[in-house]
Amino acid sequence: MTGDCFSIEMAVRDYECDLQGVVNNAVYQNYLEHARHEYLKSVGIDFAALAAQKINLVVVRVELDFKASLTSGDRFVVEVRPEKLSPVRIGFRQAIYRLPDRKLAIQAQVIGTALNQRGRPQVLPELEARMR
Amino acid sequence: MTGDCFSIEMAVRDYECDLQGVVNNAVYQNYLEHARHEYLKSVGIDFAALAAQKINLVVVRVELDFKASLTSGDRFVVEVRPEKLSPVRIGFRQAIYRLPDRKLAIQAQVIGTALNQRGRPQVLPELEARMR
Amino acid sequence: MTGDCFSIEMAVRDYECDLQGVVNNAVYQNYLEHARHEYLKSVGIDFAALAAQKINLVVVRVELDFKASLTSGDRFVVEVRPEKLSPVRIGFRQAIYRLPDRKLAIQAQVIGTALNQRGRPQVLPELEARMR
Amino acid sequence: MTGDCFSIEMAVRDYECDLQGVVNNAVYQNYLEHARHEYLKSVGIDFAALAAQKINLVVVRVELDFKASLTSGDRFVVEVRPEKLSPVRIGFRQAIYRLPDRKLAIQAQVIGTALNQRGRPQVLPELEARMR
Repeated sequence: MTGDCFSIEMAVRDYECDLQGVVNNAVYQNYLEHARHEYLKSVGIDFAALAAQKINLVVVRVELDFKASLTSGDRFVVEVRPEKLSPVRIGFRQAIYRLPDRKLAIQAQVIGTALNQRGRPQVLPELEARMR
Repeated sequence: MTGDCFSIEMAVRDYECDLQGVVNNAVYQNYLEHARHEYLKSVGIDFAALAAQKINLVVVRVELDFKASLTSGDRFVVEVRPEKLSPVRIGFRQAIYRLPDRKLAIQAQVIGTALNQRGRPQVLPELEARMR
Repeated sequence: MTGDCFSIEMAVRDYECDLQGVVNNAVYQNYLEHARHEYLKSVGIDFAALAAQKINLVVVRVELDFKASLTSGDRFVVEVRPEKLSPVRIGFRQAIYRLPDRKLAIQAQVIGTALNQRGRPQVLPELEARMR
Repeated sequence: MTGDCFSIEMAVRDYECDLQGVVNNAVYQNYLEHARHEYLKSVGIDFAALAAQKINLVVVRVELDFKASLTSGDRFVVEVRPEKLSPVRIGFRQAIYRLPDRKLAIQAQVIGTALNQRGRPQVLPELEARMR
């Protein structure tokens, strides 16, 4: 466990809400992914640049607990806490809190890995360095 | 456990693929949701009609195991196996298999409930009848 | 003008509807794109395979007239009528009709071109052959 | 013409990019819509609150000219210039410029109207006041 806690602020966009008038379930995965990619960028890892080199960061497992809905007009913060699960597996404990009251909207655990050009798991030195 | 196994066939649309050239993780939740809603419709429950009456079918937990990627041109089947978890909680065991080789793409467990106009859990008689 | 008229049938998925309870405006572009890509596939042109070779089919202009909304449960047909606008520009006259009453939902005109690895417009022989 | 020019800054999220590695065409409509809704909010009109009262702001026509692609990592500004077209029709001249070089990505003209509970066009006094 690194102790890293990265977070970004975002706001609901109306098109992200579905016919129940709240943010659609799948959209939270977009929010969580965007926050992870911003975290990775902050430690020197560029998802898109790696993909262009055929090194693919992939998600292998996601657990999402939906606690409260976000809706039109809401601002929120997405947190990312990375942790090393094995030499090639990274866990991300994530949460989304509505602002300004910090009501918990979503709790998530995401497990990811990096695959090289031949589809084999690969260590990312930048993350390795953070996780020590 | 009802023994119900419902399934629908779908095909990847190019706009669902991301810069890695495969279906984006969040899109699988769209596929799984669409298959659940079609299942519900097959037993007489209409998600949109209920939402218009302020009875909201909501997801409280999702677990997704990503096994293989789908990509442009792929056809696939989405399976839905409902099971009663409590008087007001329904579980859906779901899987997505690529066609025609039935390679497993995703395994999922989704837990849902129905909330009435006051936000309280509510039994849906149509599902209740199936689950007996 | 080729006289080609290609069409595919689709159905609204609940997650495509927004907080007004109807299909979100941007989603119609997804429907129109999917139908164009299916048309292209039917004449031997694979959007994703070309992208992998860095030949990019791109849209340069879209005009959309929104005539009636589609909503949860609606089936519809998307039509594609290609026409040659210049050696390197293809027009697609498109329309979306609700089924079974064929009420017009959207009328569109889309102009596209193909760009080669250096970003220069390129003739696609398969389309060229159709347009003669 | 009011002289209003409203703008917001945004950034591309990786999931918005498609298999060509650039922002998918339909996503620009999301960006443009979000900026319009933020503009409307700035003059006291809340899209979601109106929808809850069954007053629907709808788009009747969109013209989009795609000038240059946005891609992963790009920041950009979305501009909104409202203009009165008739007592019940509002035009929005919009443009998206990449930052920091202000390269033009998209030029758009969007025409919208408000429909009351019976589906009839309705004047919005807040916009009316701005347009004088």
